[in-house]
Amino acid sequence: MLVVITYDVSTIDAAGRKRLRKVSKLCQDYGIRVQNSVFECVVDSTKLRQLKYKLVETINEEQDSLRIYRLGDNYQTKVEHIGVKDTFDLEGTLFI
Amino acid sequence: MLVVITYDVSTIDAAGRKRLRKVSKLCQDYGIRVQNSVFECVVDSTKLRQLKYKLVETINEEQDSLRIYRLGDNYQTKVEHIGVKDTFDLEGTLFI
Repeated sequence: MLVVITYDVSTIDAAGRKRLRKVSKLCQDYGIRVQNSVFECVVDSTKLRQLKYKLVETINEEQDSLRIYRLGDNYQTKVEHIGVKDTFDLEGTLFI
Repeated sequence: MLVVITYDVSTIDAAGRKRLRKVSKLCQDYGIRVQNSVFECVVDSTKLRQLKYKLVETINEEQDSLRIYRLGDNYQTKVEHIGVKDTFDLEGTLFI
């Protein structure tokens, strides 16, 4: 299934930037980054459970916000993109 | 249906911040802001068409990235939240 993960953290703070890097790395182990704080992962329920466990371990639940959207298996027609595909990255690497 | 709209723009630039404010305002006319650049709108297909038209008019397609996810009518079990519910807002207002 396609899972969309959105993550909100104030990156003004160094600890926040570190958490964002970790969340980004985790999500990229399971999928791709499509926007600065939006990741798309095609996973089964076991992988999703693993990923969620790791994310909860990583974020600061009192400061950060994480939302997980499950779009199911037939997701191709449910996703639409408008504008540039390049995503400027807070860590300095360009993701396409 | 539930529609999730994610928006990516470099807000270092004043014009970008202005576009973000406009996108935010537009999306809030149709739904709510759940994270800094993530909006959830419960709309029918006519309203979605209207919103998309306005969004395309507003963004800079050469600089900004907009993704639209359609989660259908039975979306309640497809959305999960972890962490804080408050969203710090780039425009200085706190959204809950």
